[in-house]
Amino acid sequence: MAIRASAEELQSFMSSEFPQATITVEKVDEQEAWVRQPVDDSHLRPGATVSGPTMMAVADTAAYVTVLSHIGIVPLAVTSNLNINFLRKPDSGKALLARSTLLHLGRRSVLAEVRIYSEGHPEKQVAHAIVTYAIPSSHRE
Amino acid sequence: MAIRASAEELQSFMSSEFPQATITVEKVDEQEAWVRQPVDDSHLRPGATVSGPTMMAVADTAAYVTVLSHIGIVPLAVTSNLNINFLRKPDSGKALLARSTLLHLGRRSVLAEVRIYSEGHPEKQVAHAIVTYAIPSSHRE
Amino acid sequence: MAIRASAEELQSFMSSEFPQATITVEKVDEQEAWVRQPVDDSHLRPGATVSGPTMMAVADTAAYVTVLSHIGIVPLAVTSNLNINFLRKPDSGKALLARSTLLHLGRRSVLAEVRIYSEGHPEKQVAHAIVTYAIPSSHRE
Amino acid sequence: MAIRASAEELQSFMSSEFPQATITVEKVDEQEAWVRQPVDDSHLRPGATVSGPTMMAVADTAAYVTVLSHIGIVPLAVTSNLNINFLRKPDSGKALLARSTLLHLGRRSVLAEVRIYSEGHPEKQVAHAIVTYAIPSSHRE
Repeated sequence: MAIRASAEELQSFMSSEFPQATITVEKVDEQEAWVRQPVDDSHLRPGATVSGPTMMAVADTAAYVTVLSHIGIVPLAVTSNLNINFLRKPDSGKALLARSTLLHLGRRSVLAEVRIYSEGHPEKQVAHAIVTYAIPSSHRE
Repeated sequence: MAIRASAEELQSFMSSEFPQATITVEKVDEQEAWVRQPVDDSHLRPGATVSGPTMMAVADTAAYVTVLSHIGIVPLAVTSNLNINFLRKPDSGKALLARSTLLHLGRRSVLAEVRIYSEGHPEKQVAHAIVTYAIPSSHRE
Repeated sequence: MAIRASAEELQSFMSSEFPQATITVEKVDEQEAWVRQPVDDSHLRPGATVSGPTMMAVADTAAYVTVLSHIGIVPLAVTSNLNINFLRKPDSGKALLARSTLLHLGRRSVLAEVRIYSEGHPEKQVAHAIVTYAIPSSHRE
Repeated sequence: MAIRASAEELQSFMSSEFPQATITVEKVDEQEAWVRQPVDDSHLRPGATVSGPTMMAVADTAAYVTVLSHIGIVPLAVTSNLNINFLRKPDSGKALLARSTLLHLGRRSVLAEVRIYSEGHPEKQVAHAIVTYAIPSSHRE
């Protein structure tokens, strides 16, 4: 299944619609999408680690990029469910990298899986999420 | 079951540990905790609505406040699972209010339920979350 | 919001469509539905306790009863997501009781919350579930 | 990471502890486990399809087999959370096949991912689950 939006198009869309975000779209192809979240003091929490909400935002964005790469840039696609498990403490001094893959592309909803890592530690997953996006009726084919 | 931390103590802890956060602890008693997130442009997303990650952060914080009110201020309690369902579009011009209750207080983990509303619309729930916090071994009684 | 199917109607529907099931509809009103699952050896697992799948089936059925009580007997309503947390070991010698309430009644989906107990121990919740049912397009109003 | 229990050992354990179950362990290696659930009338629901609880039981069992293959046959490992998304109607006349992989092996908990298919249709996933098992303290290494 060919993708309908490239990494450059998705980055441009994200920068325009979420100007405050510092997350970047690193790679998008038919199999997977990668996003990167630089980590600074505003993302930390007690225990010298990255906060849960920072990882939730990364999971949601990685899934959004995956969904839009498969259905085209439909801004009004919205998250309907997000389930995230936290597996290990991320390293407070490293960016987060997330790899997202499409689990299911339905008519009414799209599911994506997201695995989050601390940059430089690809063998240690820090969080895992399943994210469901609802596709607006107007867009359904 | 008496609470072990008051709204004032929890607000003071949050302000100290998360200085960048704008969420406030509104009320804490044995039955429930309320937090409030003012909404500005940085919280919006396409569709003139509040972003999913903003609501996830509110859900996680409301649960954290509930957990700490019941076990005492144990900063190293960390989220192990969060499951959130988005039910309606929040109003982009209103603050978010979240009400959290304790579902289960175990030895190893604590579960809280969170219901999120747009301020002034208490009859319209915009999101619902179940959040599990892991209690550090050192703290277990 | 008035209910559209009574406990008797729902019991009759369940007995007809799921003749192998031993779960019964105990009570249905606008606020909540209760179902009861007798427990025998076929429901047990190692540790002298009730199996996880037995509790999942109870959660799904309790939610189905709640959904149908609010939208009418629409047999083709199907579960789209179920998230269940297991909180305590149920008593192997007791029936399971589940109380389900409506969380959200949308046009495309309905969410119900389910709390499961061992009969005679209403203060000790053994499991908690959030169940989403998809409403077939043909039924939407 | 070498497995600690073979398909034959796991099948023997399951047959002994769950004599009423008809699910079989088809394959277990370091990467994945497969289980198979024959489908008969007792598994069906309105819509000529397999019931949700049947798929939940398959997901939970597939995850249990994966967990035990990695930690050894520790019967008292128990499900602490199961999150399942239903993606398509299974074929009422086909067995269910489930493929489970290890997502995370922690000291206190183990996460497995499960993908369920109708036999003969490996390209059409019917359900996807994330299952967390808690490891009894007595077993932790």
